[in-house]
Amino acid sequence: MKARVHVMLKNGVLDPQGEAVRHALGNLGFDGVESVRQGKVIEIELAESERERAEEQLRAMCEKLLANTVIERYEIEIAG
Amino acid sequence: MKARVHVMLKNGVLDPQGEAVRHALGNLGFDGVESVRQGKVIEIELAESERERAEEQLRAMCEKLLANTVIERYEIEIAG
Repeated sequence: MKARVHVMLKNGVLDPQGEAVRHALGNLGFDGVESVRQGKVIEIELAESERERAEEQLRAMCEKLLANTVIERYEIEIAG
Repeated sequence: MKARVHVMLKNGVLDPQGEAVRHALGNLGFDGVESVRQGKVIEIELAESERERAEEQLRAMCEKLLANTVIERYEIEIAG
């Protein structure tokens, strides 16, 4: 089963990487860029074929390793 | 207009970051993780309200700044 996990900084947490991208886009002449936030995306292929159990595993992975839940939020998307 | 851009290493390009995550998950006792690929996700808010023009801008941003198209592929998702 394929899944995609997004890990983004929570709203309100300063995102210097996103800010750097916003400035760079401005310098390249892209006007009208109002905000940029940058995060991670992790594509995972699991042996588990039952959707609910896969989601449970992914949630545990996020809590234990993939996200720092003090400052980051995560979203789990299971394909198919 | 809100959009999300995914930038992933192309298939076949070695992804040491993803491999490190896969190992770490194994060490934490998560079995059945077949593959892990890690990439970037960039959430952009544009002043542009016309969908087609927004997509064109985003494509140009990817080609010029956000992705290294030699080794990375990108996907553009426009919200709403």
